[in-house]
Amino acid sequence: MPISGDRIQRDIATIARATATPGRGADRPTFSTAWSEAVDYVVTEARDCGCSVRIDAAGNVHLRPAAFDVGEPLWLSGSHLDSVPHGGDFDGVVGVVVPLEVLRAAQEDKRPAPPIELIIFAEEEGTTFGLGMLGSRAWCGAIDATRLAELRNANERSYLEAGARYGVVAERCGTDCLRPGEYRGMIEVHIEQGPGMWNRRQPVALVTNINGRRQYQVKVTGTANHAGTTSMADRRDAIAGAAEMIAAIEGLPSQLGQHAVATVGRIECRPNAVNVVAEEANFAIDLRAPSDEALDRGNNDLRQQLAAIAERRRLQFDLHMTESQPATALAPQVCEKLRRAAQRLGCELPETISGALHDAAIVARLLPTAMLFVASRDGISHNPAEFSRTDDIALAARILYATVGGDEEAALSAG
Amino acid sequence: MPISGDRIQRDIATIARATATPGRGADRPTFSTAWSEAVDYVVTEARDCGCSVRIDAAGNVHLRPAAFDVGEPLWLSGSHLDSVPHGGDFDGVVGVVVPLEVLRAAQEDKRPAPPIELIIFAEEEGTTFGLGMLGSRAWCGAIDATRLAELRNANERSYLEAGARYGVVAERCGTDCLRPGEYRGMIEVHIEQGPGMWNRRQPVALVTNINGRRQYQVKVTGTANHAGTTSMADRRDAIAGAAEMIAAIEGLPSQLGQHAVATVGRIECRPNAVNVVAEEANFAIDLRAPSDEALDRGNNDLRQQLAAIAERRRLQFDLHMTESQPATALAPQVCEKLRRAAQRLGCELPETISGALHDAAIVARLLPTAMLFVASRDGISHNPAEFSRTDDIALAARILYATVGGDEEAALSAG
Repeated sequence: MPISGDRIQRDIATIARATATPGRGADRPTFSTAWSEAVDYVVTEARDCGCSVRIDAAGNVHLRPAAFDVGEPLWLSGSHLDSVPHGGDFDGVVGVVVPLEVLRAAQEDKRPAPPIELIIFAEEEGTTFGLGMLGSRAWCGAIDATRLAELRNANERSYLEAGARYGVVAERCGTDCLRPGEYRGMIEVHIEQGPGMWNRRQPVALVTNINGRRQYQVKVTGTANHAGTTSMADRRDAIAGAAEMIAAIEGLPSQLGQHAVATVGRIECRPNAVNVVAEEANFAIDLRAPSDEALDRGNNDLRQQLAAIAERRRLQFDLHMTESQPATALAPQVCEKLRRAAQRLGCELPETISGALHDAAIVARLLPTAMLFVASRDGISHNPAEFSRTDDIALAARILYATVGGDEEAALSAG
Repeated sequence: MPISGDRIQRDIATIARATATPGRGADRPTFSTAWSEAVDYVVTEARDCGCSVRIDAAGNVHLRPAAFDVGEPLWLSGSHLDSVPHGGDFDGVVGVVVPLEVLRAAQEDKRPAPPIELIIFAEEEGTTFGLGMLGSRAWCGAIDATRLAELRNANERSYLEAGARYGVVAERCGTDCLRPGEYRGMIEVHIEQGPGMWNRRQPVALVTNINGRRQYQVKVTGTANHAGTTSMADRRDAIAGAAEMIAAIEGLPSQLGQHAVATVGRIECRPNAVNVVAEEANFAIDLRAPSDEALDRGNNDLRQQLAAIAERRRLQFDLHMTESQPATALAPQVCEKLRRAAQRLGCELPETISGALHDAAIVARLLPTAMLFVASRDGISHNPAEFSRTDDIALAARILYATVGGDEEAALSAG
């Protein structure tokens, strides 16, 4: 029985213990002690089944079966071990332990090493250095060393400074990059982080598209004034204006088609006092949709609707796009390979889209890329209550094993 | 020319320099160095015109012409010198320098001291210890020493601890209190802090009512979830819920009649991250109206409307009243005295209501009380741009002088 749910469960439990906040969820900021403990565990397991280790200049960890020649193109498979504060034990972790288990299963089964290079991407969440998918962006040449030197963690250390002791090499950040042709393709396994599959009783699904994302920072400025003496008509109230804007933003996705979402998750106001009409409200918008056309339309609607609210309320209004990540169609040929491997295992892969961004969206610009989702209980994620079934994760591992090994027998023996 | 605009202007400029944030508005937290400097200036000026000083157990400063016997009932007149952070130079200050100028004018005029006891109330704003009109409440027996021991400033020192070096005596807080009959009445001069009088070109107005105030703390709880993967239909979004509630609160005053206002000036959310659907929103409501009936109606409407929004959105909802201050009708006989004094000076006093609470609202429960408002330029208050004309303040001083002195000649000679 090569694919072992027990081993997968042990991996997840071990990595869960590497947290800065024991008992209050996963807290593994990139380049922290807890993060490094989790990485070391995976490196040791991979070495034990014959992998060599390489850390690229951006700090991503590559674990490759030593049996393959250095130049031979393998499949890339992996995810991340960094977490949001008080996050869950499955986000990212599942995508690392699945290819790890495939490597171990082949070894236990005394079969040739599968053509997989396991990768642990650094700083996927963006909560340590303020920008998501930093490791994959840097390795894929989508961000330069100058920017990496600007992005700082809570200790005011830059990505390059904080990463130096974990293998980041500032001088080689622009050159030690992924080039198309060096790999056969990329397959990332990840938890869904939404309730759709769980509700539909789908343990594993094939992801055909990754939503693009635009993020905005909005500043609304009115006039600070006394809450008791300023008549409602005379107010230029930044909080009341922001509230009307947030309601408009909530209504936006229904105009943009299926799978679009819009969120205001952060707001801060000044002077923020019970008896003062607010002078300033600052809030962030996160807008996602499966096509760039929908994102463009959302962008236009957003600007128009918010500007109209501001004008009617005589508020100053500044909207600034802080990120624009295009929508990604995943590679049909890799999707087909996964679909067929699943069929060989007797299961029909349902299709879905990814509402979240993943390292796969960055790599997809350079390599044929696909993703498998594992169901998340009740869709809860970025939360200590995050949970996925071991059986579902093991099924994803069997599909990956059957896909990259092309060996039905090996995969079927896992049943 | 007994009432001197120049002296009033000098008083205001001198007190303005006593601030913790020079160049960025008035910042005089109660029992701070800046506050104490401002108090000392007024005490010195009052002593120079023959006043003796007494600090009551709650820390309010009383300046009384020594010419009067200890037991003789005088008029009480004063206001406060503490400020909100980055506040203006006129809020409270005007109500202290007007009776000060009346005392000085009489002395300069070589007339008998007017029957005024000048009072400087401690902690009117409530921004130092978290509850407004603390000094007047304590002196009027509307709050006890136990509560004063609980209320703490930013340094975690209680009102009693922080006030000890400024004359607060914890043991005598319940006994050294104002008793009806000890004074003839109370007249507080204050800036309007709204734009009504300025727009109507009314330099000074008679206040007939003070709006009552209810304050609430609201906590809205949803579920923290991933902003990319949680469909709009599956969300329990605390910020979106709070936004809809804030819009409802903004619409409330129009149902409660003239002079009602409602404000959400403070909001804080958790986890407050751009890519996480908010789990929790906490915000404060400030509701004011000129009658207790309107406040009761507002209270009911508020609870009903917010609960309905929470229920429809499947949010937990907790609304907690943190303050209830009744509406106050000011004393008709004192209002009439002020009206007649103004007429003797050749001016017709327009009437208005006070949207803001003042120490006068507390004292009015025990003494016949009235207020004069001085116009605020464009209604700007709690803001460094706050401004009132010296001529308007001097007019209020002449009316006060004519009212308490009962001496037309003295007042008219100020013209």
